[in-house]
Amino acid sequence: MFANARWLLRKRIMDQIRDVRIVECKESVYVKPYRLEFTQNGRKRAWDLCKTHDSVACVVYNSSREKLLLVSQFRPAIYMNRILEKTFPIDTTKYPGSLGLTLELCAGITDKDKSLEQTMQEELEEEIGYKVPLDRISKITSYRSGVGTQGACQTLYYADVKDEDKVSTGGGNESEGEMIQVIELSTDEARNVIFDESVMRTPSMLFGLQWWFAHKFDKR
Amino acid sequence: MFANARWLLRKRIMDQIRDVRIVECKESVYVKPYRLEFTQNGRKRAWDLCKTHDSVACVVYNSSREKLLLVSQFRPAIYMNRILEKTFPIDTTKYPGSLGLTLELCAGITDKDKSLEQTMQEELEEEIGYKVPLDRISKITSYRSGVGTQGACQTLYYADVKDEDKVSTGGGNESEGEMIQVIELSTDEARNVIFDESVMRTPSMLFGLQWWFAHKFDKR
Repeated sequence: MFANARWLLRKRIMDQIRDVRIVECKESVYVKPYRLEFTQNGRKRAWDLCKTHDSVACVVYNSSREKLLLVSQFRPAIYMNRILEKTFPIDTTKYPGSLGLTLELCAGITDKDKSLEQTMQEELEEEIGYKVPLDRISKITSYRSGVGTQGACQTLYYADVKDEDKVSTGGGNESEGEMIQVIELSTDEARNVIFDESVMRTPSMLFGLQWWFAHKFDKR
Repeated sequence: MFANARWLLRKRIMDQIRDVRIVECKESVYVKPYRLEFTQNGRKRAWDLCKTHDSVACVVYNSSREKLLLVSQFRPAIYMNRILEKTFPIDTTKYPGSLGLTLELCAGITDKDKSLEQTMQEELEEEIGYKVPLDRISKITSYRSGVGTQGACQTLYYADVKDEDKVSTGGGNESEGEMIQVIELSTDEARNVIFDESVMRTPSMLFGLQWWFAHKFDKR
């Protein structure tokens, strides 16, 4: 029935997802809708928006092992989008949690009192377990995701890491409930995953990989 | 103070944005928050989500003119994200509407009773004014945007068009309030805009252009 990201699952320990239900959402800290009114070229318009956070993300290449380092996690938003019959609680034997597993760049939101580079450095250690000096975290560019309702800015970095930079297994901030798994891809696997729709990828990850092949790998 | 996307503005007729204010947003048709509860690996979690629409987007190359065809429009979400002092009504002499102008792929949401390809075909005619046969609209891949709260699927296409396919000036569906301007880029301009942060670009557009250079242009 579903493309089950078999390729990703071979690399991953599965998350067990159970008891999925919808509850009332009155005052969300994360989803804060508001309406903007404005006049555009003499015409009155209104647009509903959502407050959101800017973020950082990083293309990580381990040159000791010749692997690209990505992260995988269960994303409720993607899981829900893939469920056709939304009757609750969800039948998780029919719709397993693997439907919501992503393959993403190491990333994080920038709500802290730190520079973007420092935030990226912290996320690299927290999520993938590499302690990378700031002078090896270089900016690629920034862009706007979610032009419809959010418009947040994501700044994209590149880091070339080595085995000796590894200080922990990563996995995310457990106190924040993060359950993140590091996924190492060979360059062949990375090239193929750009077009593998059975794996839930983000456009920033696809851009990051495509950039890496054009500007790093294929130039060697 | 701001990078004002001078490069984009040279190509664009400016939108006049006035009377920007926030009003109450009780029952939005566009932003519908809900809360999901679930158990992940034995741990109870909750996540706030937003209902959203899947979409289609297209990398368009006009081979008669050797130009990439993109669209530009005023995006309230990006405008608001770039305003530092949120006092209303916004001082639009200090924060001109140009702050919210994007450079995007021709795209549209797929809430209609049509195939993805047909929807893409309609958007190509509506937004950029080209009537493209279905057999010249080929799929690149699909991916998930907004992994945090939305998780929608965007399917990305490629279309090689010619001057004789042009049937109108495009500009979007006026009855839906769309005010879209077609932007033609030379291949040099397109290569540069990938890294030009003064222009508000989306990650899917950056992936699309980077894909086009890797798989079409540089292979010729």
